[in-house]
Amino acid sequence: MSPQRRTGLGTNQEAIRRHNLGTLLRHVHGAGQMSRAELTSLMGLNRSTIAGLVGELESLGISERATPPEGARQGAGRPSAGVRIAEDGPYVIAVDLGVDRAVVARVGLGGRVLQRAQAPVHSHGEAWQVGASVAALIRTVVEDAPITAALVGIGISVPGLVRRSDGLIRLAPNLEWHDVSFGGIVLAALGLDVPVSLANDADLGALAEHTRGAAVDTDELIYVSGNVGVGAGVITGGHRLEGAGGYAGEIGHLRFNPNGRPCHCGNRGCWETEVGAHAIAEAINCPPDKVAQLDEILDGFDKPSPALRATGTALGQGLASIVNLFNPQMVVLGGYFRSLYTLVGAEVNAGLADHALPAPLESVTLALPGLGSDSPLLGAAEIALEPLFVDPVAALGAALVDVRGRLAG
Amino acid sequence: MSPQRRTGLGTNQEAIRRHNLGTLLRHVHGAGQMSRAELTSLMGLNRSTIAGLVGELESLGISERATPPEGARQGAGRPSAGVRIAEDGPYVIAVDLGVDRAVVARVGLGGRVLQRAQAPVHSHGEAWQVGASVAALIRTVVEDAPITAALVGIGISVPGLVRRSDGLIRLAPNLEWHDVSFGGIVLAALGLDVPVSLANDADLGALAEHTRGAAVDTDELIYVSGNVGVGAGVITGGHRLEGAGGYAGEIGHLRFNPNGRPCHCGNRGCWETEVGAHAIAEAINCPPDKVAQLDEILDGFDKPSPALRATGTALGQGLASIVNLFNPQMVVLGGYFRSLYTLVGAEVNAGLADHALPAPLESVTLALPGLGSDSPLLGAAEIALEPLFVDPVAALGAALVDVRGRLAG
Repeated sequence: MSPQRRTGLGTNQEAIRRHNLGTLLRHVHGAGQMSRAELTSLMGLNRSTIAGLVGELESLGISERATPPEGARQGAGRPSAGVRIAEDGPYVIAVDLGVDRAVVARVGLGGRVLQRAQAPVHSHGEAWQVGASVAALIRTVVEDAPITAALVGIGISVPGLVRRSDGLIRLAPNLEWHDVSFGGIVLAALGLDVPVSLANDADLGALAEHTRGAAVDTDELIYVSGNVGVGAGVITGGHRLEGAGGYAGEIGHLRFNPNGRPCHCGNRGCWETEVGAHAIAEAINCPPDKVAQLDEILDGFDKPSPALRATGTALGQGLASIVNLFNPQMVVLGGYFRSLYTLVGAEVNAGLADHALPAPLESVTLALPGLGSDSPLLGAAEIALEPLFVDPVAALGAALVDVRGRLAG
Repeated sequence: MSPQRRTGLGTNQEAIRRHNLGTLLRHVHGAGQMSRAELTSLMGLNRSTIAGLVGELESLGISERATPPEGARQGAGRPSAGVRIAEDGPYVIAVDLGVDRAVVARVGLGGRVLQRAQAPVHSHGEAWQVGASVAALIRTVVEDAPITAALVGIGISVPGLVRRSDGLIRLAPNLEWHDVSFGGIVLAALGLDVPVSLANDADLGALAEHTRGAAVDTDELIYVSGNVGVGAGVITGGHRLEGAGGYAGEIGHLRFNPNGRPCHCGNRGCWETEVGAHAIAEAINCPPDKVAQLDEILDGFDKPSPALRATGTALGQGLASIVNLFNPQMVVLGGYFRSLYTLVGAEVNAGLADHALPAPLESVTLALPGLGSDSPLLGAAEIALEPLFVDPVAALGAALVDVRGRLAG
């Protein structure tokens, strides 16, 4: 985000330098490795300015020099020296908190998963118990971190409504949590003080797919997360749509069938009661205690039943509302919708085509996540890395080194 | 919008100068008049930079010096000199094209309506006939324009889907127009060549209410337009949500009652069939040919019938979906919803409270438009003025003077 985006402020040299350093890092983070010539052209700055910025990132230990690949020599002159993310540079901890399991990873710039671990979660567990499990997983994934590498922060993906201002989990219906300060619980269990950011899982799925998944270069996209609950993450104009409090994207409660099943929200026939994990499970006669394996079960089918085809139609019809409302270029189908779409894509497409307006319909593509089931996890890494793109110097100043030693102490 | 918003470009001195000149003008345009001290503090630039920018706007004939108001003297020293929009400065033509009438206005910076005219439109008229009527209204409103004042462009509000890339009206269902290049038709009828911009009426309603209506300082807002069709304009993060092609906000076709009335879109029971002008008319036994007077008829009621109260409940229930999806701070009820809400506000509020999730519900306010029925018209003026805020010098270079003389010639 540019320094002036929201405020109508003018700008000055110091703001420009910080903006440019963070923007350059964001480019290298997105691509993994770039030549100085590419950066010069992409950022519209001259070569000496780019060289200065690259030197500053190197001296901070964030990037390192890369030899140009063979055959990179174009025309006369030497090929432009490359910049890549440093091996032992700063990292973040990403947590994907699900209804039945938690996945934790140590993630470096460039979106590299350096170490990962996971454990089951009791779906009606107390927050402090879940927090202790997550803390144990975090201890595991920092075991091999270099002592000099800096931990910039922790990002947590949550299946629920997260207040943007302070990361409070207002409601995680399928964990039965209300107003839980889960970030604080995890930090207390670790005995660490680092920045912690939380956000909704679908919002983070959208962010990750936009950064390095199916929707790179797609500035209008919706990531639809089909799990026990159904939600959406929206990117518009290249930015996350968050709403006033951070709660935007609650598509699971779109009115779908006013005479349908009761929903936990108090209404009847919300879209999530027709296409959520329990509705899919019902359509395939899967017992409720096997819902967590819905992906594998669906992937084992070769011929969908009429009930499953009807669920596909309902998925497409609900997506039509989303296409009419947001006019996205791409809708990424995450969670169980990934397996469902693979099985009943024709029905989904037909339901969408029947119910969307022609103008927004003609430019939208339905897609599977480029990052598989890791989109929310990698999105959690992105929000933890974000301070590095706003002001790398300040973010490193607030980071911790020797995390393993501190956790042991 | 800042120069780097979408592109990840770096920035340079020339881009900064243009950005700052346009940003300063946007501030004065919003407020009508400001002191240099206010601009200095608001833009975070030093006094001499502000003085230079103000001088440049004066020399372009856009702003003029204003004497500080009495009592403005604060502390020691002279009060800061003021800047205000010049009397005979550049202007735009704004057109609000409705299903039954067109309103045209000459509008100056600061949103001042300098001259206005309106005429009925035949609801199934050919586009060239409507274009000729609009051109005649434009000739009327430029009659008193100073010969030296520059016409920057024409903005047109359309009750339908407008393609952002070129302003083509893809669909205006209640005018029965498909793929109409209405901007070109109006320019041809005038024999003028000036920039013309078109956008959806609800999008422009949102823009105007955000700039100088009920939602100034509200960066997350939805303007819901209740006319023959129902649509929404969305502002998020202070920017218009447009979607991939410019079609975002088509809330009229949200699935509401799968067993309801047929909709022109081919489905049944879309929200617009339950709360649009024809549904309201039916609820009050208003004959179809009087739908254009629905505002006055509703304003004449003092006690709503049960049918009208049910329409209010349906309005609130549909708004709940919008609140869940966008988490806005404010929903502005435009078009006939203004009169409907005044009459059955309790039912609208109850329908909303019953169907929205608690977290997004707690921060949303329903409001009437601050600009009355002029929001789409003033939004059309805003999009026509926009080039002045991006680059005032270039926009004036492309503008026309002596428009009356050119139209006569």
